[in-house]
Amino acid sequence: MVTCDPTKWLVQASHKPKESKYLTYLRLAEAMEGVDYLREERKKAQFDVEAMKVAWAGSRQAFEVSDRMAKLVANDPVFEKFSKPMLARKELFKNTLRKAAYARKLINDLRLTEEEAKWLRHYIDEPNYTDLHWEMFVPAIEGQGTNEQKKKWLPLAQTMQIIGTYAQTELGHGSNVQGLETTATFDRQTDEFVMHSPTLTSSKWWPGGMAKVATHAIVYARLIIDGHFHGVHGFMVQLRSLEDHSPLPGLTLGDIGMKFGHGTYNTMDNGVLRFDRLRIPRNQMLMRVSQVTKEGKYVQSDVPRQLLYGTMVSVRQTIVVDASKALSRAVCIATRYSVVRRQFGSRNGGPETQVIDYKTQQSRLFPLLASAYAFRFVGEWLKSLYTDVKQRLEANDFSTLPETHACTAGLKALTTAATADGIEECRKLCGGHGYLISSGLPELFAFYVPACSYEGENVVMMLQVARFLVKTVSNLGSKQPVGTAAYLERVAPLMKNNCAVQTGEDWLTPDAILEAFEARAARMIVGCCQRLAMFENPEEGFAELSTDLVEASLAHCQLIAVSVFIQKLKQEIPGNGVKQSLEVLCYVYALFILHKHQGDFLAVGYLTPKQASLANEQLRTLYSKVRPNAIALVDSFNHTDHYLSSVLGCYDGNVYPKLYEAALKDPLNESDIADGIQQYVQPILKQKLHYAKL
Amino acid sequence: MVTCDPTKWLVQASHKPKESKYLTYLRLAEAMEGVDYLREERKKAQFDVEAMKVAWAGSRQAFEVSDRMAKLVANDPVFEKFSKPMLARKELFKNTLRKAAYARKLINDLRLTEEEAKWLRHYIDEPNYTDLHWEMFVPAIEGQGTNEQKKKWLPLAQTMQIIGTYAQTELGHGSNVQGLETTATFDRQTDEFVMHSPTLTSSKWWPGGMAKVATHAIVYARLIIDGHFHGVHGFMVQLRSLEDHSPLPGLTLGDIGMKFGHGTYNTMDNGVLRFDRLRIPRNQMLMRVSQVTKEGKYVQSDVPRQLLYGTMVSVRQTIVVDASKALSRAVCIATRYSVVRRQFGSRNGGPETQVIDYKTQQSRLFPLLASAYAFRFVGEWLKSLYTDVKQRLEANDFSTLPETHACTAGLKALTTAATADGIEECRKLCGGHGYLISSGLPELFAFYVPACSYEGENVVMMLQVARFLVKTVSNLGSKQPVGTAAYLERVAPLMKNNCAVQTGEDWLTPDAILEAFEARAARMIVGCCQRLAMFENPEEGFAELSTDLVEASLAHCQLIAVSVFIQKLKQEIPGNGVKQSLEVLCYVYALFILHKHQGDFLAVGYLTPKQASLANEQLRTLYSKVRPNAIALVDSFNHTDHYLSSVLGCYDGNVYPKLYEAALKDPLNESDIADGIQQYVQPILKQKLHYAKL
Repeated sequence: MVTCDPTKWLVQASHKPKESKYLTYLRLAEAMEGVDYLREERKKAQFDVEAMKVAWAGSRQAFEVSDRMAKLVANDPVFEKFSKPMLARKELFKNTLRKAAYARKLINDLRLTEEEAKWLRHYIDEPNYTDLHWEMFVPAIEGQGTNEQKKKWLPLAQTMQIIGTYAQTELGHGSNVQGLETTATFDRQTDEFVMHSPTLTSSKWWPGGMAKVATHAIVYARLIIDGHFHGVHGFMVQLRSLEDHSPLPGLTLGDIGMKFGHGTYNTMDNGVLRFDRLRIPRNQMLMRVSQVTKEGKYVQSDVPRQLLYGTMVSVRQTIVVDASKALSRAVCIATRYSVVRRQFGSRNGGPETQVIDYKTQQSRLFPLLASAYAFRFVGEWLKSLYTDVKQRLEANDFSTLPETHACTAGLKALTTAATADGIEECRKLCGGHGYLISSGLPELFAFYVPACSYEGENVVMMLQVARFLVKTVSNLGSKQPVGTAAYLERVAPLMKNNCAVQTGEDWLTPDAILEAFEARAARMIVGCCQRLAMFENPEEGFAELSTDLVEASLAHCQLIAVSVFIQKLKQEIPGNGVKQSLEVLCYVYALFILHKHQGDFLAVGYLTPKQASLANEQLRTLYSKVRPNAIALVDSFNHTDHYLSSVLGCYDGNVYPKLYEAALKDPLNESDIADGIQQYVQPILKQKLHYAKL
Repeated sequence: MVTCDPTKWLVQASHKPKESKYLTYLRLAEAMEGVDYLREERKKAQFDVEAMKVAWAGSRQAFEVSDRMAKLVANDPVFEKFSKPMLARKELFKNTLRKAAYARKLINDLRLTEEEAKWLRHYIDEPNYTDLHWEMFVPAIEGQGTNEQKKKWLPLAQTMQIIGTYAQTELGHGSNVQGLETTATFDRQTDEFVMHSPTLTSSKWWPGGMAKVATHAIVYARLIIDGHFHGVHGFMVQLRSLEDHSPLPGLTLGDIGMKFGHGTYNTMDNGVLRFDRLRIPRNQMLMRVSQVTKEGKYVQSDVPRQLLYGTMVSVRQTIVVDASKALSRAVCIATRYSVVRRQFGSRNGGPETQVIDYKTQQSRLFPLLASAYAFRFVGEWLKSLYTDVKQRLEANDFSTLPETHACTAGLKALTTAATADGIEECRKLCGGHGYLISSGLPELFAFYVPACSYEGENVVMMLQVARFLVKTVSNLGSKQPVGTAAYLERVAPLMKNNCAVQTGEDWLTPDAILEAFEARAARMIVGCCQRLAMFENPEEGFAELSTDLVEASLAHCQLIAVSVFIQKLKQEIPGNGVKQSLEVLCYVYALFILHKHQGDFLAVGYLTPKQASLANEQLRTLYSKVRPNAIALVDSFNHTDHYLSSVLGCYDGNVYPKLYEAALKDPLNESDIADGIQQYVQPILKQKLHYAKL
């Protein structure tokens, strides 16, 4: 029986001094192959891992598709990604273009469904121009184009005879779309719009795929007719010749430079675009919602503008799902390595303690494990919410839209912020080796963090939630709150009744948890409303109290996440022990947040210090219940070693030889005496620096 | 008068379509030079910036030396560092060797003092082998070598005829020094030690400078005599030939691969070292504290082992000072850009609101600004503490050592954790552009984060503090607590008396703040002690309650930071308005922590919710007082543009042209049509993918 006792990692070959110096480790790594160092840990699982994989994926069908695509990518050498951090920008970019073309060919040749193609791109795990094309450009035509426009452009886009991007953000304007400076001025004489970048800050800046690849872009600009401003609209603009790919006259295109991390978004040509009075035909304004006639008349159609919110809901739902994926990767790596790694606590010369057995490690790692599951289920639930709102919108029912919009905005902020922090926490939980690129964690962090800023900056999102909550409370007499805000109808009892918990076990009921989170959120929101009422100018009050409002919004969003998890557990979940293990995670998630934010619960007077302390003690007990399942719970994510791209997180736990293998690939190991030693170090050692040419 | 209204950044040249396409922006950037966009902001300062620079530096002399060295580095093109992220590993490493040699030559030629040389290396801002040589190798010889050994090696090391590193950490052993596996077995026959790496995990892994540069290393290994283990000791081992720099037979050297970030520690050759029964003479064991005689007898000298703690105190003190430097860089960048950047809130077509004027921005940025100052003063204070303990040690007075040791360990953990998080928070505060390498923030983060793990992992540090605190409390009857633990003597009143604050202004007294932090810390520690007493086995209790203990230690360390800041303000601080501005920052720091951890203050029953809420309101008022001084407070750090290396944080605030300039340097901008487009994109566009060679 093989255990993960480090003393087993004996270097058998170290007695042969004549052997090539690295061969030892390479041979060792080979010898270790096929040995599962985590086998004993896997035996501890108290649930059916295969069933949990299905629960994580959402359905058997979803599991099978993603599993098939993950393996397809993992087994194809074209998609190798370990060497990415060593490539210079141009090589890296070219390599990405190759992978994107190859993937497109696979999708064609294997006749993959849309769902399969999506998973394939996901597992290739490399941002590229096709992301923008499929996720922003095509949906923008679908959502904002007239039937005629769709008929013209969609077939070209769907076959990729044109490749598009989405040019909204400007150098000086991110969150505030109404502040965009690019102008589209109607010229009645020629029936054209003149696209122009009047200031430096008006340059389009950031759109992915724009610098080098995209042939077209949906450009957002201020519409000007006869000197009058008519709001910001989308325009279809050709950027490059379809013949030789050269940029068209009248515009300037460039790359905005390197971004955080090595591979990450450096595989993407985020671009800058400036217009110098470029002319486009009038019919290239996307005119589903508003039109400009030949005569220069601005006409609003009867298509409700709220439809545009639907797209935002959809994009943010995807971001929540992606948060759970990113966090699950980091947690999988940190959990597996925490089982392999030992430190301190050796007794009588025996092996040291596995670091996962330290409470300090558990109290940082297990809440993140629980969060990954919580975000997974909240993402799945948002999908059904989106389906529901889409159907309502089609039936001209806008009643749930504000609530849905606030809910997705808030959950986007909640999950991305927690995931970004969680990835870095997992990196720290891996100790020094987490700092190595080969651990996979630095790149994952650098790749993930922009999610906190894009598609709605997190603080801006939370302020939108706050606006919705304040409005909901102030309308309580006249309008019944719906969906995730429904609890606010019970504001009177929530303000009055305090927590009834008397023992640690009392915390292990959904009702105790839900009431606590509802009372905290309701009291914080009402508290803000009362303070807002003291301001003469409501906007001034909102600005002054904005940090309190953000805290109240966070409380509301955490309530949603907790209650969705609890709802999930009320459904049937097949598989031996699966539901029980998820219940433990649900309580870990809830009580972890309760402890972390106990200041809120105490400040609103809902909890006594004693009750807060009972929750914390219960949390510790729950960690002991998670411990035996830890490896099985991360195995259930079904991540391939290719996808994780981490020597610390590999499935077989064979960490140390893999660390060696990765290290040996560094270019500095190509020679014994590095370039520069003779020129710049020898003169110092030989005390001849004075004569050296530096 | 030029203001930072973005509409001023007009592209004057955009009317000339024939002009080279990038010339426009380059000409623009030139035209902007010499214009100070932050001039109006600088006029708002309510204190003497030059005096604040001195306060920050610690003394006029310290200011002048660092200022001179900063400018020396900034003005020398050899030390250019903007292009670092674009260099491949080998080039990057060679470039660093060149800079190190050039710096050494400067130090010689200009006859720089040791202090000046330190600052010079600091401002070059690039980790390299000399760091380990001067900060670890030389001090190890000084501290652990006998007089004879010092006489032999110190002159060689001081002239760099040998270059050394410090080889402690192993592949499988970081924090737990007693768990190291490398062996040094005494061979009586030959009067030698046999150095050996018996397992894969025993490989030395991480020492900086070891892979390619160092000729020598102090290697830590288990001393074995006649099969008996005599603890871990340091041994002087030659690694490379002084003639041709080739690695000596009997050992294997290599680089451990790339680390987080582009430049950062990739300029350093962190190495792996394995021994295959390498023999060294007996007199190469560092024998100041313990000796091995010719006969193989192990003898302990009368040199107290506590001396070794002195070194740790010194190293960690430096880390605290470095934390304040790193945080001040991030805060400087985020503050300047928050003044330049505008978003939302435009009225009647006027400019949008400066983002620094949003309370949500202030509540995230200003506490970090205050923390930078707090850490600066706590670092300075630690220096004096170290001087004091050194003098005591020399006089064989060990009475204050445990307290000093706990205090530095805890402050190391407190400041590095807050700084790492703070840098990332500053990056997020810069919105999307913070994700660009040219913002300087991604590299600063990647460079800084290992400080949380090295020289004492932060959680391990906090647990050491906890051990000290528990011991202090349990000895209260018999032994008077000293220094930063002295308040624990007043544990009885601290447990009993609750907060007396009645208005927001009541919080603005040092006594109210100090008592609150003391009561919180004392109550949390005592609470832990009470719960520990319920365990039969104290070690089991300590393990079980470790997360609570870490929280109590944090409370204790935050008390130290707050009280050192308050002490500082009791001293004379020259300069108009300087002390007043620092007082505001001190309260911001204290009340920010109080709000963030209000759960602690409420849970221990010291504060009422009302008092906590008053503190939070007062904090908001304080932010308004910081606002006019914001730019002056970051100017006072005296950071050069070279040191900041950030287009967003440049002194003149001329952000947007600089973003352009940096972007244009990306290799992808060398040609209009990127490499790979023809091969991998054209076949897709032209629907000929099926025939393409991928």
